Amino acid sequence: MKRIEGGVTAAQGFSAAVCEANIKYKDRTDMAMVYSKSPCVTAGTFTSNVVKAACVMWDKKLVESGKPLHGVVVNSGIANACTGKEGYDACEDTAKAVEECLNVPYISIAVASTGVIGMQLPVDKLVNGVKKMCSTLSNSIEAGTEASKAIMTTDTVNKEIAVQFEVGGKTVTLGGMSKGSGMIHPNMCTMLGFLTTDLDIKKPLLQEALSEVVEDTFNMISVDGDTSTNDTLLIMANGLANNETIDEKNEDYETFKAALYEVCTYLARRMAADGEGATKLFTAHVINAENKKKAKTLARSIISSSLSKAAIYGCDANFGRFLCAMGYSGETFDQNTVELFFESKGGELQVFKMGVPLEFDEDLATQIMSEEEVIVRVDMHEGDAEATAWGCDLTYDYVKINADYRS
Amino acid sequence: MKRIEGGVTAAQGFSAAVCEANIKYKDRTDMAMVYSKSPCVTAGTFTSNVVKAACVMWDKKLVESGKPLHGVVVNSGIANACTGKEGYDACEDTAKAVEECLNVPYISIAVASTGVIGMQLPVDKLVNGVKKMCSTLSNSIEAGTEASKAIMTTDTVNKEIAVQFEVGGKTVTLGGMSKGSGMIHPNMCTMLGFLTTDLDIKKPLLQEALSEVVEDTFNMISVDGDTSTNDTLLIMANGLANNETIDEKNEDYETFKAALYEVCTYLARRMAADGEGATKLFTAHVINAENKKKAKTLARSIISSSLSKAAIYGCDANFGRFLCAMGYSGETFDQNTVELFFESKGGELQVFKMGVPLEFDEDLATQIMSEEEVIVRVDMHEGDAEATAWGCDLTYDYVKINADYRS
Repeated sequence: MKRIEGGVTAAQGFSAAVCEANIKYKDRTDMAMVYSKSPCVTAGTFTSNVVKAACVMWDKKLVESGKPLHGVVVNSGIANACTGKEGYDACEDTAKAVEECLNVPYISIAVASTGVIGMQLPVDKLVNGVKKMCSTLSNSIEAGTEASKAIMTTDTVNKEIAVQFEVGGKTVTLGGMSKGSGMIHPNMCTMLGFLTTDLDIKKPLLQEALSEVVEDTFNMISVDGDTSTNDTLLIMANGLANNETIDEKNEDYETFKAALYEVCTYLARRMAADGEGATKLFTAHVINAENKKKAKTLARSIISSSLSKAAIYGCDANFGRFLCAMGYSGETFDQNTVELFFESKGGELQVFKMGVPLEFDEDLATQIMSEEEVIVRVDMHEGDAEATAWGCDLTYDYVKINADYRS
Repeated sequence: MKRIEGGVTAAQGFSAAVCEANIKYKDRTDMAMVYSKSPCVTAGTFTSNVVKAACVMWDKKLVESGKPLHGVVVNSGIANACTGKEGYDACEDTAKAVEECLNVPYISIAVASTGVIGMQLPVDKLVNGVKKMCSTLSNSIEAGTEASKAIMTTDTVNKEIAVQFEVGGKTVTLGGMSKGSGMIHPNMCTMLGFLTTDLDIKKPLLQEALSEVVEDTFNMISVDGDTSTNDTLLIMANGLANNETIDEKNEDYETFKAALYEVCTYLARRMAADGEGATKLFTAHVINAENKKKAKTLARSIISSSLSKAAIYGCDANFGRFLCAMGYSGETFDQNTVELFFESKGGELQVFKMGVPLEFDEDLATQIMSEEEVIVRVDMHEGDAEATAWGCDLTYDYVKINADYRS
């Protein structure tokens, strides 16, 4: 497997376009479209929030129908959540605008929105946007990059990646983009993400691979504990790589899953590091736990704690907060078998050993915690399961960004 | 029932003392003691965190033994959590110092600590502090007030209250104090709280009343979602009011429970309003829910959401965040039967009605949200259960306070 340039347009047959639809933001692109003329086997995971956005309901219906998809239209600025029937109709109208322009069934077009909850979308602007984009679709690398920028809200950097790997002698490409900076908490992807591949694979296996990989990647990040109404991750596979169709869990399937894991891990880490107001990526690595579920719960609890996040911001090795967060996670353990370490490019430091705090060098601690990625490693001494979760620090800017987000 | 002046020394037979033990803070009192020469029936609730502080383990053992208690010694600055056997020995040594001075069994003395996790207590300073306090115990109102100040950490105001009520023609007094500003999240009291009363009541009923009232008061507040390792709430009843012993759930029991509810509600609201960095009390009132459990879960999810808290700080009527928080609470509901209102001394405003956002006056919204207490009222239109939860806004100062708490 190798990294290549690009994102959603890297794989054969996928094109993208963007436009300035003036939905809420001014002087920037706020709509993006990803399209494949060849029909795509599509899998998806969606928010577990009971209050689902209209677009989530639309996309779920499409993905569950099992019919192939041709593309997705995304807007930033307004989330189209808590908008009743009018909101759902906006999804249908958007998809129908694509049908009119490109002559594909409107039920093959997914839609996704991100932004303020509880505002209606300006449907005319969306429909005009679709028309513009349908006439400017491009399979260039740049078109993919522009799409990854148009879907940003409070994100400070765009997030895209592409990889290539071999399946039965054929070169397969997998690319993707995602956005997400606030309202990010592990519970079914917690963001918008769109992956494209020219792999030929049966839908049930595509869905199974996606669901499994999401558990260890997007569902292991948190910015603020708020699970969004709009979380959507879609993967579209158009089969143009011409590989032998993957229809069982063979070696090819595992090769694809490894590539999917790499792509999702990259995007998930980028999203956590770009959490609203964040200055650092905050990683928790729990090792030698009794079982995988426990390792995951403990790791997520550590990176979700407001107090732990504030300590990471302040470069303060206040390790008691990490133990405290593990303690209220819902899992049980004996604190007397726990060891806790801080590590980064700046070095490594043990601060807690078998139930007892250790004396440590505060200067070294500050040096370690001043790096761009700070890892808290917890050795449970219980078994051999491990898990990693990714979050970010809690800063003044998180409050600033969110105290008056609507205006 | 009437409010009277004072706190833990208001009830007959209770005295208090404080001292500057220099445990971590300088130039302020950091130890407090509450004492009753008459033995006290005692009930308690403790943190549900798996990582329990040494003092929590000590107090649980005492309360569960069923033997009467004489008092409690509290320190601020160091939490005595994650401190192994050395930490537990510090509790015993503190209690033994009281035994030596006042000739009561050391297993009748509770201890409580609040502050940094993962540091050992300086036992010599504690023992010296106990000696000083045992010789300066006073039943004055002022002594109680001083105690409520000595137990503060990042609190900005002390929290105490006292009430009187009649039981079978006898006047009974109930007083209390609490502290708590950070690491506050509903899960067994989430703070330190000490209540004293001269009521005569059997222990099982005292425990039952306390556990029930805690569920609707202290367990309904949140500052930051972090459930502490040290949460402790104790109530000591020495029987000096000379009422007929309450040994069944009669009218007297209900009278006492109402007084206990008033005292706990007052302290809980004060703690939420004084959350770290808070500028406002943020109250969620869920009405007409299907059942009580659901109403409580929804109310707590609203006031616990970082995004909701930031919106309250910014006086931003971004009501979608409140609906989003309800949606990921774990409870299911139909957003199309929900109504949402903002209210305060500044007025009342409906923003969401039966699944659809309403147009509203932004100036009025800002006026309402600028008050000291902002209430979000949610009408579920499902049944007749209701619940209230209390939190605070999320501000720059929360981050500031917690980015470098240890130094």
